[in-house]
Amino acid sequence: MNFTSDNWAGVHPAITENLAQYASGMAAAYGSSELDKRIEQRFCEIFEREVAVFFVRTGTAANSLAMASVNRPGGVVLCHREAHMVKDECGAPEYFTGGPRLQTVEGAAGRMNPASLLRELKHFRPDFIHAGQVMAVTLTQATEVGTDYQPDAIGELAAVCRDHGLPLHMDGAGFANALVSLDLTPAEMTWKRGVDIVSFGGTKNGCWCAEALVFFDPGKARDLPYIRKRAAQLFSKTRFVAAQFEVYLEDGLWLKLASHANAMASRLADAVRGNPNFRLAWDVQANEVFVILPAIQAEEWRARGVGFHQWPVPADLIGTVAEGEILAKLVTSFATPAAEVAEFSEILAGEK
Amino acid sequence: MNFTSDNWAGVHPAITENLAQYASGMAAAYGSSELDKRIEQRFCEIFEREVAVFFVRTGTAANSLAMASVNRPGGVVLCHREAHMVKDECGAPEYFTGGPRLQTVEGAAGRMNPASLLRELKHFRPDFIHAGQVMAVTLTQATEVGTDYQPDAIGELAAVCRDHGLPLHMDGAGFANALVSLDLTPAEMTWKRGVDIVSFGGTKNGCWCAEALVFFDPGKARDLPYIRKRAAQLFSKTRFVAAQFEVYLEDGLWLKLASHANAMASRLADAVRGNPNFRLAWDVQANEVFVILPAIQAEEWRARGVGFHQWPVPADLIGTVAEGEILAKLVTSFATPAAEVAEFSEILAGEK
Amino acid sequence: MNFTSDNWAGVHPAITENLAQYASGMAAAYGSSELDKRIEQRFCEIFEREVAVFFVRTGTAANSLAMASVNRPGGVVLCHREAHMVKDECGAPEYFTGGPRLQTVEGAAGRMNPASLLRELKHFRPDFIHAGQVMAVTLTQATEVGTDYQPDAIGELAAVCRDHGLPLHMDGAGFANALVSLDLTPAEMTWKRGVDIVSFGGTKNGCWCAEALVFFDPGKARDLPYIRKRAAQLFSKTRFVAAQFEVYLEDGLWLKLASHANAMASRLADAVRGNPNFRLAWDVQANEVFVILPAIQAEEWRARGVGFHQWPVPADLIGTVAEGEILAKLVTSFATPAAEVAEFSEILAGEK
Amino acid sequence: MNFTSDNWAGVHPAITENLAQYASGMAAAYGSSELDKRIEQRFCEIFEREVAVFFVRTGTAANSLAMASVNRPGGVVLCHREAHMVKDECGAPEYFTGGPRLQTVEGAAGRMNPASLLRELKHFRPDFIHAGQVMAVTLTQATEVGTDYQPDAIGELAAVCRDHGLPLHMDGAGFANALVSLDLTPAEMTWKRGVDIVSFGGTKNGCWCAEALVFFDPGKARDLPYIRKRAAQLFSKTRFVAAQFEVYLEDGLWLKLASHANAMASRLADAVRGNPNFRLAWDVQANEVFVILPAIQAEEWRARGVGFHQWPVPADLIGTVAEGEILAKLVTSFATPAAEVAEFSEILAGEK
Repeated sequence: MNFTSDNWAGVHPAITENLAQYASGMAAAYGSSELDKRIEQRFCEIFEREVAVFFVRTGTAANSLAMASVNRPGGVVLCHREAHMVKDECGAPEYFTGGPRLQTVEGAAGRMNPASLLRELKHFRPDFIHAGQVMAVTLTQATEVGTDYQPDAIGELAAVCRDHGLPLHMDGAGFANALVSLDLTPAEMTWKRGVDIVSFGGTKNGCWCAEALVFFDPGKARDLPYIRKRAAQLFSKTRFVAAQFEVYLEDGLWLKLASHANAMASRLADAVRGNPNFRLAWDVQANEVFVILPAIQAEEWRARGVGFHQWPVPADLIGTVAEGEILAKLVTSFATPAAEVAEFSEILAGEK
Repeated sequence: MNFTSDNWAGVHPAITENLAQYASGMAAAYGSSELDKRIEQRFCEIFEREVAVFFVRTGTAANSLAMASVNRPGGVVLCHREAHMVKDECGAPEYFTGGPRLQTVEGAAGRMNPASLLRELKHFRPDFIHAGQVMAVTLTQATEVGTDYQPDAIGELAAVCRDHGLPLHMDGAGFANALVSLDLTPAEMTWKRGVDIVSFGGTKNGCWCAEALVFFDPGKARDLPYIRKRAAQLFSKTRFVAAQFEVYLEDGLWLKLASHANAMASRLADAVRGNPNFRLAWDVQANEVFVILPAIQAEEWRARGVGFHQWPVPADLIGTVAEGEILAKLVTSFATPAAEVAEFSEILAGEK
Repeated sequence: MNFTSDNWAGVHPAITENLAQYASGMAAAYGSSELDKRIEQRFCEIFEREVAVFFVRTGTAANSLAMASVNRPGGVVLCHREAHMVKDECGAPEYFTGGPRLQTVEGAAGRMNPASLLRELKHFRPDFIHAGQVMAVTLTQATEVGTDYQPDAIGELAAVCRDHGLPLHMDGAGFANALVSLDLTPAEMTWKRGVDIVSFGGTKNGCWCAEALVFFDPGKARDLPYIRKRAAQLFSKTRFVAAQFEVYLEDGLWLKLASHANAMASRLADAVRGNPNFRLAWDVQANEVFVILPAIQAEEWRARGVGFHQWPVPADLIGTVAEGEILAKLVTSFATPAAEVAEFSEILAGEK
Repeated sequence: MNFTSDNWAGVHPAITENLAQYASGMAAAYGSSELDKRIEQRFCEIFEREVAVFFVRTGTAANSLAMASVNRPGGVVLCHREAHMVKDECGAPEYFTGGPRLQTVEGAAGRMNPASLLRELKHFRPDFIHAGQVMAVTLTQATEVGTDYQPDAIGELAAVCRDHGLPLHMDGAGFANALVSLDLTPAEMTWKRGVDIVSFGGTKNGCWCAEALVFFDPGKARDLPYIRKRAAQLFSKTRFVAAQFEVYLEDGLWLKLASHANAMASRLADAVRGNPNFRLAWDVQANEVFVILPAIQAEEWRARGVGFHQWPVPADLIGTVAEGEILAKLVTSFATPAAEVAEFSEILAGEK
């Protein structure tokens, strides 16, 4: 029963097969092959408009290059307090931009809201250059705590950005999970609500390593080829990333895989709700389940072979998590067996 | 007949198969899986000593992270005038080090020599900080023009480095090609001659994307985990890089693949030598063949379907390449069919 | 009545005169003149040990170069929430280090304490590289809110740093003000308590532009000449910075100037205490006075020609500053006339 | 007899006096004082158009911030082989831009020419991103070897830049010396010939430390306030830089000072020409005299108390400087006494 992380999962068989199919033969390198071009075009269809797409190989790279594309001197990026970019990327976004700061914004359940965003923005005034200048806002969808931004919530943040002349970036490492959870089209969850750039993740949802950086205004991506190359993210045999996306985006495979992961998380959540010793930290809207439970029971879980991460208690849960309790993070993926979820549910039922 | 580049080739079937084998199942992410650890150990065996190994996914990344590991303020890196790092990496080494300069050193046939290196070093004196300070020397093996450094030549450069307290890095994008050409062990071509760090390439020789950064003094790699992570080169499912290397380094597959590529280049060279209209720019010692030929015949090659790159004429060939002539670069790989080489040889024979 | 900032003041006459004295004649440039060397030696006397000293021209430069000297990949610098480095330097410390992050630590009255520092440090574990690694701790003396760190408090923070192998930097833009307030020697306030590097400010206390970066372990400053030069902070006629320090440090001038500034602040504080409509936000220990007062009265101050800054209400005062109240910052300097303080005191007395 | 460098000279008395005049009194900090604004306006008059001006304190800072203002990913700056930016700034321009490369261009007598510039530009093609992209061209006026660019020569380089969409920067550390040598107005030597940005030097010509970065299109300087602040070049008491420029630019003082320096250099050149043992390396057009002479006589100069630098023999003099000869650099300044020049001339006359 391994709920440690969706990046512990392997690769979906259809994707592996497609890689093998392209393994022989010569093809133009550095993203200029026919396959690369075809899959770039596929992204335009998926998003229902012309987009500029750049394949990269880690979510950290996608996020960092997105920030590099909007970089400004004395720049400040606003993001939620729990954002992956600020907590788990070892300073990559700052490194790739040569210094700009990630300034965190408060907000319950992993979400910024317009009020908290406006409060932060007030600190940066054109007549006080000592504080620097805000250069972008970034949100994570699904959020780091397994919740979603509703499309209207995205639209409200985008409106604040527009009023301040700021680009809005979406870290979509779990893009598919949010999409199926909200039952939206890619366009509805992004540019139709004012998002400018998306880090579109495939790795956590069945690919080996396939991420894409998507710009809804291709004119804003003019320097991206140079940004990607000097960041060592232009791969010679990049067609093998394209080959992953080819299958991933075919016949809705990506949505099926995400739906499975979400469904497994939903069942875990039900099991948790059924045991009065445990409680959910936040609504379960994607493929992550955060459980508040006595530390002693967490150890019992481990003893029974349940793999999971203990999570630092964030600011908005202080007071909620009692002495002797911990916060556990359970993650499901495209590869999580229903049998493991059932087994775990039985354990929870038995511990009542 | 495609001799454009070894990075146009695909993936060797054995490597593809091994990827498929690991595709299912859960494994620890970020380089901590059992497979990752085992393949890291394999590098120690290959190099006959304890080494610190870091898997990355492009040669540019390997080179840039190597430079980041020896970074110093006002730093200068000495490399050959034709080095890939200075000509083809879009400034990545400078970007990843935040400014240090690649200063080029002259030398015939793609090679620095101790005299040219010493001449450059003289410009940097401890009492003249305005010039900056040299922080490393890097050589390419095989060189950018298809020649090799003999082991003694490496030893002599290493002696200069040692005298100046400088680390010596080897860009080994074509490591295997040089190795089989020189009939040396990995140890003999590197640390036994004074090399400190190697960018060990696998991608051009049959892998999809598999590069390794190898430190012969693991103590010098202390910060590399952070350097790699903040450079967005720590992949979650990094075990799939390890899986490529597993087969690549098994039963001498890598050496067989490189031997094939070299043999094909050797045959091309023979064909060139047989035609008085053409001449080789440099000795053919690895898998690249540089031919000086009339531009008009180069066009005929293209008309007959021969894929190759025209190469800028470097300083040491000015005067040698006549008006109306060009420099063509033909590259072979593990996947170059002998039949294509034979076909090309016939064309050359017919054009006499 | 101008209490806006101590950097609005001009230059002390004795310092101006000394500049004039050195104005004619030739002298070795770039810090190698006899005068430069002599004043560097003077710093050793002031600090009662061998130190490495580097003259620079802004406090932001001193702080940023200090950080550059301890720079590490994925680096994180811990500082107080209100630190000048994080709030008022437009990202310079991050820029000069190429990305490292300033992570803020909570603490009342502008001070970090060992407990809050330890709490932050816990987030950075060697086995979790995604968070980065702490590379330094920096404190401000006097603090941004006009309070001092007692020497024991410095020693306690230094002990935490030592336990974690971290250098401790002191931003001493107001070094002299703290020194005379605490009645300590420079040694007692710094290295005897475990401080490793000091940004030693002169500009706010009567110089035109004279700042020094002081390392108590000269071996740790080995690369500083290069760091300073590539940061464009090595001035050709640097002897004119030395000339300022010559007088500044002579016969205790710097301490007299700081004492005056502190005394003026103390009188302002007395005047505030005497009026029940106002209250001091924090103890007044150096040359800054923070007053909580009704916004309406602040406007009356302005109407009467009192220059001051409104200050954003920091986290530890939320709840203390009531609706309709603001936080005013009054700063005194070596040049603040006693008459202005008296005039302001009368206003306050009259407004009762 | 000290001809080592113009930055060994002190400060002109009128400038020193003006500093003293502003020493007392309060004034708005960070460049917002009335004096700052007035002197900024003075630059508009000097250049006969609206310009954006930014005071900084070293030439290296001016050059580096100019490059930061035109920064692009994978950027390359073309400059002459002998440029101060590439030889004497310890990598500052690369550091402040986070990686971009200074690529050197050949050219006799310290000057690039349109042909050599075009040859370099050819290497950078939009379809080959691996080489990076040129982001600016910079020339030095007067050049590093004491020659000038004629206005038409500037215009021709500017035409090449315009054709390639590139900004043209002028490193004017010796701006005044070139101006009086060519008998041009500031406008004629810069924007009327197509220059976009100037590093306007005052330090070498009688100021203590006063440099200005001048943009002829203020719209291109939009981010400069942030660029300057995060580079630690926004000084609190910046009015003291303005105070230097106030006198420097008044009644043509700057031109008189430069004329004196040039005249002294001209006399030195005459003395050199009068002795058959010596010869001038290049025309003497500003305040630097480069002499080729037997090493043994150079030592005699030193023995007689003549201060000067030995200069590395650049590429275009190889073959001209014989075995046993060296290249000596003699620099004059606003403060060079005519008596010293006369004394030196006598030595040369006596050595015949």
